[in-house]
Amino acid sequence: MATLDALVTELKEIATLGSIGGLLGWDEQVLLQPKGVEFRSQQAALIARMTHERFTSKQIGDWLGELLGDKLDGDAAVVVREAKRDYDRATKLPTSLVEEISRTTTLAQAAWVEARKANDYARFSPWLIKVLDLRRQEAACIGSPSGNAYDALLDQYEPGETVASLVTLFDDLKPRLAKLVEKILTSGKRSPAEILRRDYPSEKQQALSKFAAEKIGYDFAAGRIDVSVHPFCSGIAPGDTRITTRYNPNYFGDALFGVLHETGHALYEQGLPKDQHFGTALAEAASLGVHESQSRLWENLVGRSAAFWKWLLPKTRETFPGALADVSDEQWLAAVNDVRPTFIRVDSDEATYNLHIALRFDLERKMLSGELEVAAIPTVWNETFKQYFGLDVPDAARGCLQDVHWSAGLIGYFPTYTLGNLLAAQLYEAAERDLGNLDDRHAAGEFAPLLGWLRTNVHHHGRRFSGRQLCERATGSPLSADALMRHLERKAAKFHGV
Amino acid sequence: MATLDALVTELKEIATLGSIGGLLGWDEQVLLQPKGVEFRSQQAALIARMTHERFTSKQIGDWLGELLGDKLDGDAAVVVREAKRDYDRATKLPTSLVEEISRTTTLAQAAWVEARKANDYARFSPWLIKVLDLRRQEAACIGSPSGNAYDALLDQYEPGETVASLVTLFDDLKPRLAKLVEKILTSGKRSPAEILRRDYPSEKQQALSKFAAEKIGYDFAAGRIDVSVHPFCSGIAPGDTRITTRYNPNYFGDALFGVLHETGHALYEQGLPKDQHFGTALAEAASLGVHESQSRLWENLVGRSAAFWKWLLPKTRETFPGALADVSDEQWLAAVNDVRPTFIRVDSDEATYNLHIALRFDLERKMLSGELEVAAIPTVWNETFKQYFGLDVPDAARGCLQDVHWSAGLIGYFPTYTLGNLLAAQLYEAAERDLGNLDDRHAAGEFAPLLGWLRTNVHHHGRRFSGRQLCERATGSPLSADALMRHLERKAAKFHGV
Repeated sequence: MATLDALVTELKEIATLGSIGGLLGWDEQVLLQPKGVEFRSQQAALIARMTHERFTSKQIGDWLGELLGDKLDGDAAVVVREAKRDYDRATKLPTSLVEEISRTTTLAQAAWVEARKANDYARFSPWLIKVLDLRRQEAACIGSPSGNAYDALLDQYEPGETVASLVTLFDDLKPRLAKLVEKILTSGKRSPAEILRRDYPSEKQQALSKFAAEKIGYDFAAGRIDVSVHPFCSGIAPGDTRITTRYNPNYFGDALFGVLHETGHALYEQGLPKDQHFGTALAEAASLGVHESQSRLWENLVGRSAAFWKWLLPKTRETFPGALADVSDEQWLAAVNDVRPTFIRVDSDEATYNLHIALRFDLERKMLSGELEVAAIPTVWNETFKQYFGLDVPDAARGCLQDVHWSAGLIGYFPTYTLGNLLAAQLYEAAERDLGNLDDRHAAGEFAPLLGWLRTNVHHHGRRFSGRQLCERATGSPLSADALMRHLERKAAKFHGV
Repeated sequence: MATLDALVTELKEIATLGSIGGLLGWDEQVLLQPKGVEFRSQQAALIARMTHERFTSKQIGDWLGELLGDKLDGDAAVVVREAKRDYDRATKLPTSLVEEISRTTTLAQAAWVEARKANDYARFSPWLIKVLDLRRQEAACIGSPSGNAYDALLDQYEPGETVASLVTLFDDLKPRLAKLVEKILTSGKRSPAEILRRDYPSEKQQALSKFAAEKIGYDFAAGRIDVSVHPFCSGIAPGDTRITTRYNPNYFGDALFGVLHETGHALYEQGLPKDQHFGTALAEAASLGVHESQSRLWENLVGRSAAFWKWLLPKTRETFPGALADVSDEQWLAAVNDVRPTFIRVDSDEATYNLHIALRFDLERKMLSGELEVAAIPTVWNETFKQYFGLDVPDAARGCLQDVHWSAGLIGYFPTYTLGNLLAAQLYEAAERDLGNLDDRHAAGEFAPLLGWLRTNVHHHGRRFSGRQLCERATGSPLSADALMRHLERKAAKFHGV
C-alpha cells in the first residue's frame, strides 16, 4: 500500500494548506481591519494557487491511475474514488479559466453590493451575463452525462444530483407547499411574532445562545463563537470549528436560531472523523445539502419544537424577565413558529422557505441555458413571486438582487438548501423511530441521543455516501418531500388550526 | 535589473508565506481553543518548512551571487546586502539542526512551565543543557569574526553588536545605575504606588487604553487590540499590525502601559514602508533593540511624563472617579514613576530594569561558553541579585526560572532590551532638540510631531542601517548610557529628591 500511503500523505499536506486558507478566510470575515484586506487577497491567492498546483500535479494523477487499477475496498476505495472525482474536476479546468472566474466574481460581487444599495438591477446585469458565460465555459470543460450545463455545476455542490432528479422533487413539493401556505394565510390565525421584537440586550442573547449551543453538543474546547455581519460556520481544521453570529438587541430571532443553525453545521464538522482521516474524503462533508440538513435539523426540527422550549423557556424568562413578563408559553411557541410571506429568503419561515428556493432553482436553470434573458429576470422574478406568495415585489433589492449567490457565480447552489430541509425532516423522523420519544429527552435538555444518532448515521461516513444514499441508509426510504410536509402540516394544525 | 526584479518577486512571495505564518501564530496566542493546538503546530510547521525551502533554494543563491558582482547602490544595494546576510545564515544551518532546535525548545518550554510551577530548577536544568548545546552547534555553523559563540547568536537579533561592544556599554551603565538606585532607595521617599491597585474595571481600562493608543497614532484601520495572556505586537502583514494586552481590574499599571508599549512596537511596524518594499529588508525592522526603543519610548519617555498625564489625567479621573477621588496630580505622577526593586523583571521600573538585564547578560554569556555550569545558575543568580538589589531571592520561580527566553533558546536576546532603553532615551532627547519643546505638545495631546520625527529618522529606513548607525544619524552621537542616565536622574530628583 505504499502508493496509497504516499497519496494520503500528499492529500493531507494539501488539506493542511487548505485549512490555512480557511483560517485566512475566517479572519477576514471576523477580525481583519479595512487596510489589511488588499494584502489578505494576496495571501489567500498564494495559498489557493499552491493548493491547486499540488493537487493537480502529474504525480497525483499517476498514483490515482495506479490505484484505480488495483482492487480496493473499504476506506481505501472511498479515498481513491473521491480523490479521483476531485482530481478530474480540478484538472479539467484550465488555470486561466479558474483565474478569470475568481477575478470576475470578485468584481461582480462588488458590483452587486452597489447595485443592491442603489436598487438598480441594470448596474448588475452586465456582470451576471459575464458570470453566466464563464460558468457555461466551466460546465463545458467538466461535462455531464446529460449534456446539461446545470448538471455539471450542480454536481460540484451535490454529487449525484441532476436537474431531472431535482425537478421530480420540486414538482412534488411545490404544489403541496403552496397549498399549505395558502391554508395558513387564509386561516386568519396569526402568531404574536412581535413579542420577539422587544428589548433583548445583546450580551444576554450571547450568553443564552452559548448556553444552548453547548448543551446541544458544540465542543467549545474545539471551537468558538464570534460576531460577523453574515453568520457562518467554518470547519477550519481538526479541533478548530468556529461559528459566528450577530446580535440585534431589538430582535430575538436572529442570534439564538442563527447559533442553533451554525451549531448544526459545527456538530457535523466536529463529528467528521478528522483525527483519523483528515485530508481524505472520509473526513469531509458529503455535500452542501447534507451539511444544510444538519443545521436545519437543530434550528427548526429541534429548536422550534415545544419540547425544546419546555427546556429553554424557563431560562429564557430568567434572562429576559421584562420582555417575557406578559408572554405565555403558548404565545412564545407560536411566535417562534410564525408563518408569513416575506420578500427576503433569509428572513423567511420554515413553511415558505422552500418556495423561495423553488423560484431561484427555476430561474437559474433557465438563465444558464439562455432560455431566460438576463434582462428579463426582474420581471419573471416578480411574476413568479406574486404567483407563489400573492405579493407584489416592491423593488429589485427585495427581489432578484437580494442574494449574493449569483454574483459569486454559485449557480446550482440554491437547491441544496431545499435538499437539506427535506433531509433534516426525514432524518429527524427516523431518529425518533430508532430512539423512541425524543421530545421527553429534549424537554429535559438531553440532546446526546439525537446527536449520537446523527454521528453514527451521518457524520461518521464523511463522503462515503451521497446525500440520497445517506438518506436511504439512515431512514429506510428514498429522499422525498413527505417528512417535511408531515412536519409542516402538524405545525399548521397546531398553530393555525388548519 | 531583471535579476533584481526576479529576486524581489520571489522574496515577496516568501514573505507572504511568512505573513501567513504570522497570522497562524497570532491566532494561536489569542483565539485558538485547546483542541486546535496540535494541528496548528502542523500548519505552522508546513508554512515554516515551505518558507525555508524556498528561501534557501539554489536559485536565490545564484541571483544573489550575480547581483553581488554588480555595482549596486541605493535601495538595491540594501536589498541585496541584507538578503545575502539572511541567505548565508539560513543556508549555513543544516535542516536537521533547525528541526532539532525547534523540537527541543518546544519541549524545553513545556518543561520550563512545569518547573516554574513546581518551583523546581532541577526539572528544567537538563533541558537547558540540551538547549545550550544545540545553540552552540548553531553558533559553530554560523561563525563570527571573534570566534565567540555568543557573537554568532547575538548577531541574529542585533546585527553588528558583539559581546565586546555590549560589555563596554554595560560596564559604563551598571555602576551608574546601581549608584542611582541606591540613592533612591536610601532617600526614604516612596511613591504612593498602592493607588494603582484600586478598582479599575477592565472595560473602562480597555476604553482608556484604546483612546490613548489611537491618539498617539496607532492606525486602527490597519490593526486591532485583543486580549492574550502575554501581551505582544505582531506586524502580520501590510495593513495588518495587531497588538494584545491584558486587563487586571485591581491594577491600573498593566493595561495602559502595556498598550503604550505595544503601540510603540505597532507604530514602528505601521511606519515601515511595507506598501512599497514588503518582502525586502527595506520594509523590515532594523533589529530587536531598535524595535524595543520604539516601545519603551512611548511607554516610558512619553507615557510616564508629567506632560502626558497633564493631557490624560483629566480623562482618567472621569473614567475612574472613585479610584482617583482622593489622588492629587502629583501623587498620580509619583505612583506611575515608582522605583522599587522587585524580583520579577517584567514588573520592574525604568530605573532597576536594566540591572535585571545586566544580570542575565552576564549569566548567559558564561553559560554558553561553559564558564558557568548549568547546575550553578541558581546560586550565581541569587548572589548577583543580592549584590545589585540587596534582596534575597526567595525561590527559583522568582529567580532564574522567571523568564521564558532560555527555555526557548533565545540566548543573546536579553541585551537588546537594554539597547532599546538606551536608544529610546537618546532618540527622545534628539527629537526634543530638533522639534523644540515636546512637553507642551504632549500636554495638549499632540503626538504627531514626535511620531513624524520617528517615522523620518527610524521607521522609514527599514534595515538600511544598524541600531548604532540609526542612533548616530538621528542623534548625532554614538549610542551611550548618558541620555538614559540623565532621564533617570531627572526623575530621581523630582520624585525622590536625590
